[in-house]
Amino acid sequence: MRLRSFLHQFLPQRRCYSHSTMSVVNKSAHPFDKSRLDALLNRRFFYAPAFEIYGGVAGLYDYGPPGSSLQANIIAEWRKHFIVEDHMLELDTTIMTPAPVFETSGHVARFADWMVKDTKTGDVLRADHLVKNVLQARLAGDREARGLAAQPKDDEKDKKKKKKAKTVAVQLADDLVKEFENILAQAHNYSGPELGELCRKYDIRNPDTDNEVGEPQQFNLMFASSIGPTGQHPGFLRPETAQGHFLNFSRLLDFNNGRVPFASAQVGRSFRNEISPRAGLLRVREFTMGEIEHFVDPEDKSHSKFHQVRDIVLSLLDRHVQVSGSTQVTHMSIGEAVDRGIVANETLGYFLARINLFLIKIGINPDRLRFRQHMGNEMAHYATDCWDAEIENATGWTECVGCADRAAYDLSVHSAKTGQPLVVRQALKEPVVTEKEVPEFNKKVLGMAYGRDAGVLQKSVGEMDQAQLTRLKGELAQGSTTISAQGKEFSLTPDLLTIQRKTFKQSIREFTPNVIEPSFGFGRILYTLLEHSFWCREQDIERGVLSLPPIVTPTKVLIVPLSAKEEFDPLVQEVSTKLRKAGIFSRVDDSNTSIGKRYARNDELGTPFGVTLDFASVQNRTMTLRERDTTDQLIGPIDDVIAVVTELVQGTINWPAACQRLPAYDGVQAVD
Amino acid sequence: MRLRSFLHQFLPQRRCYSHSTMSVVNKSAHPFDKSRLDALLNRRFFYAPAFEIYGGVAGLYDYGPPGSSLQANIIAEWRKHFIVEDHMLELDTTIMTPAPVFETSGHVARFADWMVKDTKTGDVLRADHLVKNVLQARLAGDREARGLAAQPKDDEKDKKKKKKAKTVAVQLADDLVKEFENILAQAHNYSGPELGELCRKYDIRNPDTDNEVGEPQQFNLMFASSIGPTGQHPGFLRPETAQGHFLNFSRLLDFNNGRVPFASAQVGRSFRNEISPRAGLLRVREFTMGEIEHFVDPEDKSHSKFHQVRDIVLSLLDRHVQVSGSTQVTHMSIGEAVDRGIVANETLGYFLARINLFLIKIGINPDRLRFRQHMGNEMAHYATDCWDAEIENATGWTECVGCADRAAYDLSVHSAKTGQPLVVRQALKEPVVTEKEVPEFNKKVLGMAYGRDAGVLQKSVGEMDQAQLTRLKGELAQGSTTISAQGKEFSLTPDLLTIQRKTFKQSIREFTPNVIEPSFGFGRILYTLLEHSFWCREQDIERGVLSLPPIVTPTKVLIVPLSAKEEFDPLVQEVSTKLRKAGIFSRVDDSNTSIGKRYARNDELGTPFGVTLDFASVQNRTMTLRERDTTDQLIGPIDDVIAVVTELVQGTINWPAACQRLPAYDGVQAVD
Repeated sequence: MRLRSFLHQFLPQRRCYSHSTMSVVNKSAHPFDKSRLDALLNRRFFYAPAFEIYGGVAGLYDYGPPGSSLQANIIAEWRKHFIVEDHMLELDTTIMTPAPVFETSGHVARFADWMVKDTKTGDVLRADHLVKNVLQARLAGDREARGLAAQPKDDEKDKKKKKKAKTVAVQLADDLVKEFENILAQAHNYSGPELGELCRKYDIRNPDTDNEVGEPQQFNLMFASSIGPTGQHPGFLRPETAQGHFLNFSRLLDFNNGRVPFASAQVGRSFRNEISPRAGLLRVREFTMGEIEHFVDPEDKSHSKFHQVRDIVLSLLDRHVQVSGSTQVTHMSIGEAVDRGIVANETLGYFLARINLFLIKIGINPDRLRFRQHMGNEMAHYATDCWDAEIENATGWTECVGCADRAAYDLSVHSAKTGQPLVVRQALKEPVVTEKEVPEFNKKVLGMAYGRDAGVLQKSVGEMDQAQLTRLKGELAQGSTTISAQGKEFSLTPDLLTIQRKTFKQSIREFTPNVIEPSFGFGRILYTLLEHSFWCREQDIERGVLSLPPIVTPTKVLIVPLSAKEEFDPLVQEVSTKLRKAGIFSRVDDSNTSIGKRYARNDELGTPFGVTLDFASVQNRTMTLRERDTTDQLIGPIDDVIAVVTELVQGTINWPAACQRLPAYDGVQAVD
Repeated sequence: MRLRSFLHQFLPQRRCYSHSTMSVVNKSAHPFDKSRLDALLNRRFFYAPAFEIYGGVAGLYDYGPPGSSLQANIIAEWRKHFIVEDHMLELDTTIMTPAPVFETSGHVARFADWMVKDTKTGDVLRADHLVKNVLQARLAGDREARGLAAQPKDDEKDKKKKKKAKTVAVQLADDLVKEFENILAQAHNYSGPELGELCRKYDIRNPDTDNEVGEPQQFNLMFASSIGPTGQHPGFLRPETAQGHFLNFSRLLDFNNGRVPFASAQVGRSFRNEISPRAGLLRVREFTMGEIEHFVDPEDKSHSKFHQVRDIVLSLLDRHVQVSGSTQVTHMSIGEAVDRGIVANETLGYFLARINLFLIKIGINPDRLRFRQHMGNEMAHYATDCWDAEIENATGWTECVGCADRAAYDLSVHSAKTGQPLVVRQALKEPVVTEKEVPEFNKKVLGMAYGRDAGVLQKSVGEMDQAQLTRLKGELAQGSTTISAQGKEFSLTPDLLTIQRKTFKQSIREFTPNVIEPSFGFGRILYTLLEHSFWCREQDIERGVLSLPPIVTPTKVLIVPLSAKEEFDPLVQEVSTKLRKAGIFSRVDDSNTSIGKRYARNDELGTPFGVTLDFASVQNRTMTLRERDTTDQLIGPIDDVIAVVTELVQGTINWPAACQRLPAYDGVQAVD
C-alpha cells in the first residue's frame, strides 16, 4: 500500500533516515514506558478520571481539550472514510430505551458477563478475567523458576489490565503448562459453568485475599432506569446503537427507495455497566462508538466495490487456529481469504479491508493490528460470525472494532414481536410461475354434514402437503374416501371437497435482509493510537513526543512568536489568517517561556509543525518551519512556508520533499 | 447587519424580487400549516418517534438522515462560531454521574417540576402547564363570545403544545380577563403552592376528565440508575453538561496557564424525565445540547471583544416589563442595554449578541427572535440572572438558548463539599501592604494565671476587631485592665498580653470565578428553524419547500442526470469530483422519475441548488443550474457553473449576482 509508506514518517518505534540535511531520529532509543505515557496524558489533560474531585468512579473518564479534539478528528475521518465514501444513511437515535425492545433483542436475558464473588469478603470479580489472570501468573512463575522470565509471551501482557495476580516462581509440571496454555488460547470460549469448573479444578482463588470464589453468576451489563413520573415504564441505557438502526429499518429502506444493499451509520454514546473496570480507556462504562449496519440480500452477499480492496493483505487469526491452541496469524489478501472461505463473503471482506485502511490511515501501526475471528461460545447472542480488529498495546491485544454478521436475527425478532413487517419487497425480473393442488370445500354441504366439527376437517386438509393432496384427489376421483383428524372419522365425497390444480404467479420476492455490522469503539482506538504514537527523545527521556499523523492531531501548526511583544502581532495575525483560509487549524503560543520549551510542550500534544516569527520575520518577512519528529528546521519567505506547510498537512508532500523545497535553517537562535 | 441582507433570500414569509430575469416568489401565499410541515418531516424522515414500531415513548425521538445531517451542520457551525472564534477549551465529559455530585449541586433537592394528579384517575399533569392551558382556553372562549376569535394572541398559541383544553365560548367579566392576562404574563413565576392556590381559586380541573386535581407535588426530573454490580452506588443521568465543566475546573485552568477569563465548551447528550411531554422536539426527555461555561473574575466582568458587538440591536423583554403584566419587547443595541444596566455586564451582553448572530446566521427569522429575562421564581436554583433566547413558532415563544449568570454557585458548593480548592490564584501586580494590631499571649504566664480557662480568654481576644484591639492596647499601656468572657472576669497585664502593630504583605489574590453560561438546545433550534424555513409553492400547496440557508442544508448541490443511462456517468463523476474538491457536498439523484419530481423532492429536503446533466451536456459540456426558491434556471459551461455554485454555497455571492454571471436558461426541457 502506498498509504503505508506515506505514513511511515509518523510511526514511532522505527528509525527514520532521509536526505542528507535531515536528522536521524531513533524513536526506539528508550523502551516503551506506559507510566510515562499515562503521566503525559494526565498532565496535558488528554483525559482524566471523571468526578476525580469526588474520588472518581471506575470506568468513567472525561476528555479534556486535546483528547476531545483528537477524538473529534478521528470521528470526522471515520465519517469521511465510511459514511461519505459509501453513501451511508446517517442516524442519531435515542439512548434511553424502553425495556420491551431489549427483551425482544435478547439483551435482557443474555447481555451479561459471568461474575464470581469472594466467599468471605463478597468482592465481585469477572470470572473469565480471574481465570486468565491467575493461570497467566502461574505460567509466569513457572518461566521464572525455569530461568526464562525475560521473554514473557504476548498474551501474558494481558494481566496488567486485570486485577493483578502475584507471580510466584514455582515450576509446574510440563503437562500442566501445556494445559494452561491451551486454556488461555481459548480463554474467550468458556461458559459460566465451565469457568466455575476451572476454578475448582485448578484451585483458582481471589488473588487479593486468597479466599475461594463462589459459583459464576450472570450479571446483566445494561444500566437500568425508568421512564416517566409514575415509575411504571422500565428502561435501559442502550449498550450499543444498533437497535436504533433496526427499529427504523422500514423508514431507512423507504429513504433508499426500497432498494438493498444499503448501510446506515451512527456515532453515539453507549453504556455498559462493567463488573470491575480497571483498564483505563480500554474498558469503560460509557463510551462513544460508531456503528454501521449494512443491510444485504441473504442470497447475495457480494459487494460491488470488493475489487477495489481485493489485494489488501490482512493479518488473520481464524477460529480453527485458535481452537487448536495457537495464536499464529496468517498474512493473506482479503481476496484470497474470501475465495478460500476463511472470510465468509465479499461484504464482510470489504469491511475488514476498509477497517484496516482506516486504522492505518489514522496512525495505528499495521504490524500491531490483526483480525481475529470469534470462537463459538464467544460470540454475542445475535451473531453468526464475527471478526474483531485487535490492536496490540501494553496490556495485550485489545478488540477495537468488531465486524459481526448478525444475519436476520434482529429484524426477525422485532418483526415477530411487533407484527410490523421488516422486509424488503423486490419486484422479480421474471415472475415465478408455479402450479399447486388447491382444496376447496362446498361450505353449505360441509356445514350440514359436520356442523361444529367442520373446522377440524378444514384444518386437517389445509395442512396437507402437495403429495397428500394429490393422493386425496386421486381417491376422490374414485368416488369417496375417509380421513381421520383429532380422533374423528370424516367421510369425503366430491360434492363436499374438490381438489384442483391452479397456476400461481409470484412477481414480488419478500425477504428479511441480513446485517453486516462493523462496530467501532473510539476510546479504545484513541488509546491504542496514543500508545503507538508515543516515544521519548534519545537524548532526553523526559521529553515525550506523540507522533500522531497530521490528519488527527488536535493542532496542525503551532505559531510561535519570539515573545508576546506587540511588534509581532500583525505577522501572527497574518499567518494565522492565511492558514485558516487554507483550511489549516493553527494555534498561537505566545506564553512567557523559551521557544524550545514551547515546542517541547507541543511535541507532547502531537503538533506536527511549528513556525517561528522573530525579528528576522519582521525585517525580511521570513519564517522558520520546524518538524516535530526530527526537530529539523527550514526557512523561507512567509508565503512559501505557508504553501509548504499546507501541503504537508494535507499529505500531498512529506517532510523529505519539504526539505527539497526550502533551505535548512541553521540560524544562531537555538530553539531546541 | 450585512448578514441579514445576505440571508434575506433564504428567509420565507417574504416576497422576493430581484433583477428582471428572475421570478417573483411569494412565500406567504399560503398561511403556515403545521400539519403540512409535520407530514413532510415525517415522510422525509427528518425525525420520527423513537421505538415507533413498539408504540413509541413520549418525548423520545430519532433523527433520520436529513435530520442528523441538519443537526450536524448546525453543530459544526456552532463550533466555528463559538469555540474556534473565541478559543474555547472543548470537553467531552461523562453522562452517568454518581449521586453525590448532584446532591452537592442542588439538583437532587431542587431540579424538579410541580405536578398535580387527577384526583380520580391518577393521571399526572404538569401544574404550570395546566394552569396556563386552562386560562388560555377561557380567554379564547371569552374572545369568541365577544366575536374577537379571529385574532388569537401570540401567547394563546402555546396551548397547542400542551394538553388541549377545550375552548367554550363564554364571556368573562372584564376584571377576570385582566386577572387571567396578568397571570399568564408571569406564568413562569409561580411556586408550587401558588399554582395549587390558582387551581382552587379558579376551579382549574383536568381538561380531559373534568376532575379536580390534587395539591402540586415536586417531581425530580433526573433519570436515576445505579453504577456497578452491587447496586450500592446510585447515579443519575446528567440533566445538563455543566457539572462536567465545573468538576474539571482546576485542570482547565491549568490548561489555560492559570489565567481567567476563559471558556470551556461541550456538545453532548443530556436527559430530563419530563412529566408529560407532548410537544414534538420542543419538549423531550433526551436531547443534544451545547454548553459554554465562561469563567470570569467576579470583580471584572468586562469583555475584551465587547466593542465588536456593541451596536448589534436585540429585541429585549426584561423582568420588570413582565412583572408589570406586559410582553412588549424593546429594540435596543446591546451597548445601550449594558450601559443602562438592563443587561448586567459586558460578558453577558457579549454572549447575547453572539447568540443572536449565530441564530440568524443559521436561518432563524430575526423578527421572531427575542431575549427574555427570567423572573425571580422562574430562575434555576443555581442562577442569579438569566436571559433566554426565545424563538416564536406555531406553539408560541420557546426558549432555545438560556444564558445564565451562575455566579460562583457551582464552584463554591463543589469546593466546600470535596475540600478541593476551585479557585484562581492571581499574582498581584502591586503587593497589597496592610498594617494590623496583633495580640500575643505569654503562654507560660497565661497557663499559670488561668489554667483551664486560658482558652476562653484567648478565644475572646482572638475575636476582637481592630478597634477593640487598639482600645485594649491603650488600656494595657496604662498598666492593667479587666475583660469578661463567658461569665468570667479576666485581669490582663502587659506581661500576660502584648499587642503590637505588624505589617502584612499580600502578593497573591485568590478568588472563585463567576460563570456565565450560554446553553443551547439543538433540537429546539432545529425544529424552529424548520418552521421558519417552510412554505408551499403559490401555484401548488402540495409542493412544500424548506428554504434553509446553504450553510446548514443536508445537501448543498443536487446532481440530476437526465437518466441513469451510462452515457451520463462520466459527467456525473466529473461534476461530483470537482464539487468535492471545492469542498461542496453534493448528492446524485438518478432515480427513475422525472427531473421535475426529483427537484420537488429535494426542495422538501432544502437542497438549495441543482445542476442538470442532459444530452446537451454530453455534446456541448454545458449544464443548467437551478435555484430552489425561485426555481429559476441558468446555463453555462460546466466549469463556469461549478465556479458559480461554489461561490453561492460559500455565500460570497447571492442568486441575483449569479444571474448576472450566467445567462438564464429557457430551454425546451421543462424541469418544473
